[in-house]
Amino acid sequence: MVNVAILGFGTVGSGVAEVIEKNGRHISEKVSNRIALKYILDVRDFPDSPFADRVIHDFSIIENDPTVGVVVETIGGATIAREFTRRALMAGKSVVTSNKELVATHGYEMMQLAKEKNVSYLFEASVGGGIPILKPIRTCLAANELTQITGILNGTTNYILTRMIRAGLSFEDALKEAQANGYAERNPAADIEGQDACRKICILASLSFGRQISPDQVPTEGITSITLADVDYARSAGMKIKLLGRAIRRESDDRVCAYVAPHLVSDESPLANVEGVFNAISVVGDAIGDVMFYGQGAGKMPTASAVVGDVMDAAKHMCYLKSNCWEQGGPDVVYSVEEVSSRWYARVAGTEPVAQARRLTAQQPEEESAWLTEASMTPGEVKALLSGREVRALYRVLDWKHVRRLSDIK
Amino acid sequence: MVNVAILGFGTVGSGVAEVIEKNGRHISEKVSNRIALKYILDVRDFPDSPFADRVIHDFSIIENDPTVGVVVETIGGATIAREFTRRALMAGKSVVTSNKELVATHGYEMMQLAKEKNVSYLFEASVGGGIPILKPIRTCLAANELTQITGILNGTTNYILTRMIRAGLSFEDALKEAQANGYAERNPAADIEGQDACRKICILASLSFGRQISPDQVPTEGITSITLADVDYARSAGMKIKLLGRAIRRESDDRVCAYVAPHLVSDESPLANVEGVFNAISVVGDAIGDVMFYGQGAGKMPTASAVVGDVMDAAKHMCYLKSNCWEQGGPDVVYSVEEVSSRWYARVAGTEPVAQARRLTAQQPEEESAWLTEASMTPGEVKALLSGREVRALYRVLDWKHVRRLSDIK
Repeated sequence: MVNVAILGFGTVGSGVAEVIEKNGRHISEKVSNRIALKYILDVRDFPDSPFADRVIHDFSIIENDPTVGVVVETIGGATIAREFTRRALMAGKSVVTSNKELVATHGYEMMQLAKEKNVSYLFEASVGGGIPILKPIRTCLAANELTQITGILNGTTNYILTRMIRAGLSFEDALKEAQANGYAERNPAADIEGQDACRKICILASLSFGRQISPDQVPTEGITSITLADVDYARSAGMKIKLLGRAIRRESDDRVCAYVAPHLVSDESPLANVEGVFNAISVVGDAIGDVMFYGQGAGKMPTASAVVGDVMDAAKHMCYLKSNCWEQGGPDVVYSVEEVSSRWYARVAGTEPVAQARRLTAQQPEEESAWLTEASMTPGEVKALLSGREVRALYRVLDWKHVRRLSDIK
Repeated sequence: MVNVAILGFGTVGSGVAEVIEKNGRHISEKVSNRIALKYILDVRDFPDSPFADRVIHDFSIIENDPTVGVVVETIGGATIAREFTRRALMAGKSVVTSNKELVATHGYEMMQLAKEKNVSYLFEASVGGGIPILKPIRTCLAANELTQITGILNGTTNYILTRMIRAGLSFEDALKEAQANGYAERNPAADIEGQDACRKICILASLSFGRQISPDQVPTEGITSITLADVDYARSAGMKIKLLGRAIRRESDDRVCAYVAPHLVSDESPLANVEGVFNAISVVGDAIGDVMFYGQGAGKMPTASAVVGDVMDAAKHMCYLKSNCWEQGGPDVVYSVEEVSSRWYARVAGTEPVAQARRLTAQQPEEESAWLTEASMTPGEVKALLSGREVRALYRVLDWKHVRRLSDIK
């Protein structure tokens, strides 16, 4: 028997309890061991919950109970969650989490502790909600040298952009609608300013390329300045605006550039058709070419599904799972986004031609114009090209054919 | 050190050798053990190959070499491959394969042998080429009760259909083009008649639902009777014709219906946008909702990538991996496709109305007409509806909204 303790009985935590209860028999069969929910730690009481009898308020009960083998951390943030995770690992318990902030910022530290104590630190649910992505990368794709990760990693922003594209809502109205529907929080900053996507691309990049890449190494731009004019111009070019997290390995020195920014994505790319709150992550490797993982990137039950999958893995092995880790980071891990070339979309004041660029036409005010550069260039080069112009929007175009997708069937 | 022997030096076998050579250092690091290619068994010699020194012709050398830990079977078919797999397992070697025919028909037998000998029998590459799908199902999604699998499982037929839809080629011309491009074999029967997809849905269904489902339990229809008229009518309804393998679990008695048949799929479904030789597999579970896996479903390097991923798994554990298995099959595992309801597309002689159906309009001869039923019905019911009419085509419509995808963003 493996006893489980859940820290934080919010949306994901309560989902985890429900999945363990509902599918308990099958889960225990698959693990060849009974998995039982013993404690739920929260500051609140839940007298009406079917799990009320398991709610406690003192972490040290869990810490000191040798029958607890796996601790599920669904508190979030990097303060209390960090302390409890440390203490649980120190006490010889495996920890499973959906906490992207903690993994992105202190993942290496937690893994080192887990290794020392020969227990696991697992976090499949921290990226892409229920979409299987971390484990497939480190097992099924393990024979590959990975070169690129590109993902729609945040459902809230993808919902807002989808509503701007499909229904012509302004950013502000789409955000309000997302809040009304429960897809955006009252304080939506972490989503719309890109931090959430930033944490996820950090985790994906660290796991794929082997060294910790931290949020402060990842230039991050959100979607707050995207207008309906940009949406229209993109449409006229057969593209959609998507917020992407990207990580690109440079072969020459094995460094990685990771960043988050809006991109224009061709309608023919599978990423363009990922709508609403769905997420999708494309992974490119030298043998596999391009694979994509698609599903609900958030939500109570999908995320709980991933957490419980990890609980089962931890319960089955009850030891340090080496493959689920990366090495220490440092400034020599990354290279600058200023060195990454791409084609660009620019919306500028005035209608005078922009050199080496094609003008886009859409039903927009005549005192401005939008352009798509013909060639691939660095941020410095495109800014030089636009010097002297008032730049109102400047976004990269995703080179999605890097893996020849569809190129063979024209 | 773990020595590997490859059986069959064809497309996939030589890809496996190349991946092991090219990424050998990283692969060995990840496994914490050196993986070395020791033998290649083939009837031919390969004097010009860099691997010429490892080619042998006598299987018993491998069988009797105690330093060989993992055997890669890329022979194909269910005769010699079956014998060599049995003998390798009996000799205490883990076996990794891309051989869908053998796994679909004799998977249970091989797993039992592997279990007896405490070695692994792994076959990620048998479904979806390089796309990670079997391992994610049995690990990341393990907390779910799975209910449905729907996949575009065969790249050849998807290429042919894509060319019919995009370029207006007839089935025959699209097939010829696929053969010229190396996407279809000279004898394309196993692809175009659906057997390849049938084997893959057998493997997916067996793994997902826990008991062996064999090809002879899976009604299979290929794409040979699909005409450009069907493609046009589908387009007029905002749909595309796709060959799908499906497996549906019935909750009441836990039985599964698996079948392969052409379906009309809404353009809004992510499956409709899977084009050319790409594959995609959608999995529905009670917690996760719907997830989709997408990538190149065949080809030398993608398939080799999956094989080597399994080799690494086998080398790391060197024991029987319990999760990668299912129980014995039998007639009580399945229920009949005759009990599965759906909406239907029918093309019939004459233009008299069909009850409870909406007529489709397209640029087609006037002596026939095409219809989409409004309601969901069984094959028996739709045939009763069409009784007295000459039915020229009858295909199911995929109910892709079973998981509410996109429904929230209209």
